Amino acid sequence: MKDLQPTIEEDFVSSEDFTLESGAVLSEITQHYSIFGEINADKSNVSLVFHALSGSARINEWWADFVGDGEALDTHRKAFICVNFLGSCYGSTGANSAEFANKKEFPLITVADIVQAQKLVLDHLGVEKLEAVIGSSVGGMCALQFAATFPEVAENCIAIGACELSAMGLALNHLQREALKYEKNVGLARQIAMISYKSAELFDKRFSRRPNRNGENPHERFENRFDIAGYLDYQAEIFKYRFDAETFKIISKAMDLFELSDEEIKRIKAKLYLVGISSDWLFPASDVKKFADRCVFNGVNAEFIEFISPDGHDAFLSDSAQMIKILRDILN
Amino acid sequence: MKDLQPTIEEDFVSSEDFTLESGAVLSEITQHYSIFGEINADKSNVSLVFHALSGSARINEWWADFVGDGEALDTHRKAFICVNFLGSCYGSTGANSAEFANKKEFPLITVADIVQAQKLVLDHLGVEKLEAVIGSSVGGMCALQFAATFPEVAENCIAIGACELSAMGLALNHLQREALKYEKNVGLARQIAMISYKSAELFDKRFSRRPNRNGENPHERFENRFDIAGYLDYQAEIFKYRFDAETFKIISKAMDLFELSDEEIKRIKAKLYLVGISSDWLFPASDVKKFADRCVFNGVNAEFIEFISPDGHDAFLSDSAQMIKILRDILN
Repeated sequence: MKDLQPTIEEDFVSSEDFTLESGAVLSEITQHYSIFGEINADKSNVSLVFHALSGSARINEWWADFVGDGEALDTHRKAFICVNFLGSCYGSTGANSAEFANKKEFPLITVADIVQAQKLVLDHLGVEKLEAVIGSSVGGMCALQFAATFPEVAENCIAIGACELSAMGLALNHLQREALKYEKNVGLARQIAMISYKSAELFDKRFSRRPNRNGENPHERFENRFDIAGYLDYQAEIFKYRFDAETFKIISKAMDLFELSDEEIKRIKAKLYLVGISSDWLFPASDVKKFADRCVFNGVNAEFIEFISPDGHDAFLSDSAQMIKILRDILN
Repeated sequence: MKDLQPTIEEDFVSSEDFTLESGAVLSEITQHYSIFGEINADKSNVSLVFHALSGSARINEWWADFVGDGEALDTHRKAFICVNFLGSCYGSTGANSAEFANKKEFPLITVADIVQAQKLVLDHLGVEKLEAVIGSSVGGMCALQFAATFPEVAENCIAIGACELSAMGLALNHLQREALKYEKNVGLARQIAMISYKSAELFDKRFSRRPNRNGENPHERFENRFDIAGYLDYQAEIFKYRFDAETFKIISKAMDLFELSDEEIKRIKAKLYLVGISSDWLFPASDVKKFADRCVFNGVNAEFIEFISPDGHDAFLSDSAQMIKILRDILN
């Protein structure tokens, strides 16, 4: 893995009032952002990349093989901006920011709010046009929302494993937030999320019914686990150190609320690439396909691309060779 | 719905030591059982029905339309015994029984233990042969285990939505038991179970992205829910009053541990009817089919039947018209 670092990594503080979709007002917002590659003189080589629920502005932390000189996100001639979501815990204004530390509740944040806030970063950088907006999962929702809210800005929109959540998706997110009511950490919520990110096929291939790799025999004692359970417990354990419950709730709720009306869809001018992951059951490929059909019906130049992978929703991270190929095909 | 009651409903207390598969010994076990219909003089008209995870010995409580004079489980000429699982909270020895009230842990119970215990009830009743063993979900595991452990007893075995759990099934059960570590009640565990019992298709049809039917608008306040979330919360609420955490853990763990070796399968003499529910993702029909193939490969007279239903695993309860038809076709 390359040790690529952002070309620029900074905070942008907007000191003007920021009015959220809910009507609530944040008096000042900070957004932490990174730029990979160099923005050219006429600022015509820029794309905006959105991270997923637990991601940061550092694309290299979650799409390490994707970004760099000659890579799918090719920093040789192009520049890629990534902004930590408003409401997230990786440097932007969120529930743990100083001004909310003593309040019980951070206001309701929507995907539209996240996108409006990121537009301020583009304005600050003087970037008026984007070659593409790109994102997966809730990041894909952001890309779609950006294309609808700012139809003149992005030429292309790539949304991977993203559309409006179905009832099962809403159920999975609800249970994660329910878990957060009971636990101090984010472990159980993360575990529920993990099963929604992976597929039965992947779990079968990777864990089957094998006993936990630490040697526990599940047939011997009640506490002893199968390998899949040991894996999930490990995922819970490591997640605690890098994410917090409030951010989890805020972004999970934003995902739930994402919807585009036909009127919003009709405004989109970008070419849409809607990538459905074949084994994804959080955002089933069939739902992404339906959303693509709806966009076409509403006059948008939208293309559905099936990403055939056994990995589940997470394929956009784990099945990187295929994901990179899809991005290269679209971007070149 | 008919108000059919059991013909007989009793406790059977075995005062001899009962040795569990783990080696632990229960000095006395009580099993609560019901009989629907009349056992004939030569005791040749009896079937044994197994309940599912949260069921009781009263078939009429969970298969109300299935049992009675002229029904699929036809009490006109036949008799159906149902025994509350060893380890369950509906009258049989379980974690809340007096002798365990002060202990922290009830011993590890397996499907084989449940079946061995139920054989004692049959012995007590002088029933040596069974027309059929019938069960769904963990009850289907019991039916299969019974056919393997007592190959001379049952002529037919009907297992619905049951086979060895895959890694995804183990994951779902693990998360339910993890939830039980955090919560006082069984609500969250039940909610996780509910999503494993239902299908995305059913949720879409029944709830879609509608706001909660009580009028909450999820776009207005953080706490406000979609209808699917309100439904899940309601399911959590009502389950608390009828089930307890210890029973949940005991039976969930027994499900995890269920496996039949090829040697056990080879012993089966009953005709096996393995019913896979098309939309079941806890026990995918493809897994049930694979298990049926394995039985055939091992010389067992096994038939795979696809139960086409959009309802998910729970179809054996909710899609009663079709389930009844399948049972009638097999039993007649």
